[in-house]
Amino acid sequence: MAHITLPEGLPGIRGPMALRPETAKHLNELAEVLLRSDNSLTRGERELIATFVSSLNDCFFCQNAHGGLAQHYLQCDMPYIDQVKSDFQSTNLSPKLKALLSIAGSVQKGGKHVTPEQIERARDVGATDLEIHDTVLIAAAFCMFNRYVDGLGTWAPQDRNIYIERAKWRADEGYVNFDLYK
Amino acid sequence: MAHITLPEGLPGIRGPMALRPETAKHLNELAEVLLRSDNSLTRGERELIATFVSSLNDCFFCQNAHGGLAQHYLQCDMPYIDQVKSDFQSTNLSPKLKALLSIAGSVQKGGKHVTPEQIERARDVGATDLEIHDTVLIAAAFCMFNRYVDGLGTWAPQDRNIYIERAKWRADEGYVNFDLYK
Repeated sequence: MAHITLPEGLPGIRGPMALRPETAKHLNELAEVLLRSDNSLTRGERELIATFVSSLNDCFFCQNAHGGLAQHYLQCDMPYIDQVKSDFQSTNLSPKLKALLSIAGSVQKGGKHVTPEQIERARDVGATDLEIHDTVLIAAAFCMFNRYVDGLGTWAPQDRNIYIERAKWRADEGYVNFDLYK
Repeated sequence: MAHITLPEGLPGIRGPMALRPETAKHLNELAEVLLRSDNSLTRGERELIATFVSSLNDCFFCQNAHGGLAQHYLQCDMPYIDQVKSDFQSTNLSPKLKALLSIAGSVQKGGKHVTPEQIERARDVGATDLEIHDTVLIAAAFCMFNRYVDGLGTWAPQDRNIYIERAKWRADEGYVNFDLYK
């Protein structure tokens, strides 16, 4: 049971968003720009960064909701997403995305954990300043979203396949102007 | 020196905000709703929660920028703000705000650190569901803002009095429609 009374039947972040539409609006608009708007990082890559950070923060809802989207965009399977979460260096992701995931992992621990060497490595394998910026902000934003979801004790469906099934639909609808209750 | 090339002369979060106005817009709008819009928690109380979390995250810029605002709104002095950061239970803050700061401190560690006992305590001393919600989201949001500021290695003025001096002006201008360069 959630720590506060939330509208019934809404999983994860959707409960608090329904309770407080004034803040939900800006949270969703932020997610839309960070994860979906035009960017040299693909939607799949950005959802993967969000998934990885949510996994480090042990947020079941976010790592599965965004993991489902990453899987959808990247056309991969669940074991691949799980491998990214547990040991991304062993995957066939690009050197650039690996360098960005490394930065995201440091941001999750705390901003000061990011090192000049990590930034230099990312640049060496082709990351732009804007890609580094967006990686840091996506990672930071999921340190917020994850804490929002778990700090209020929200519930989440435990069957991971539900998130996969809904991902295509979620990819179509985006983060703004969607129906919280659908 | 910041990890990426940022517009010169802008302290803390202002550099990355100038680089990326598309995300800055939503970050500022979120701060405006959370910290300034009508609420049963005063602006001073909300800035104090932001300051406390920023202190736990060791973010110099945020804890001083928002500490200056808290000091301005609460009409207190810097040692009082520092006492809240180091040991809020020993201050003369209300039992409700102490209970909310305790929740905020748990959110800073991670969403799952919030306990039913902390929520019950907050309710017992008069906190509403919405106040608990907003406390969790303010704390979560500053886990984002702090990581954004420090994860990009931004610079910040080291003289803490600068933040105090500018707080009155910042309180007047708010978080949206302000001039990043002033």
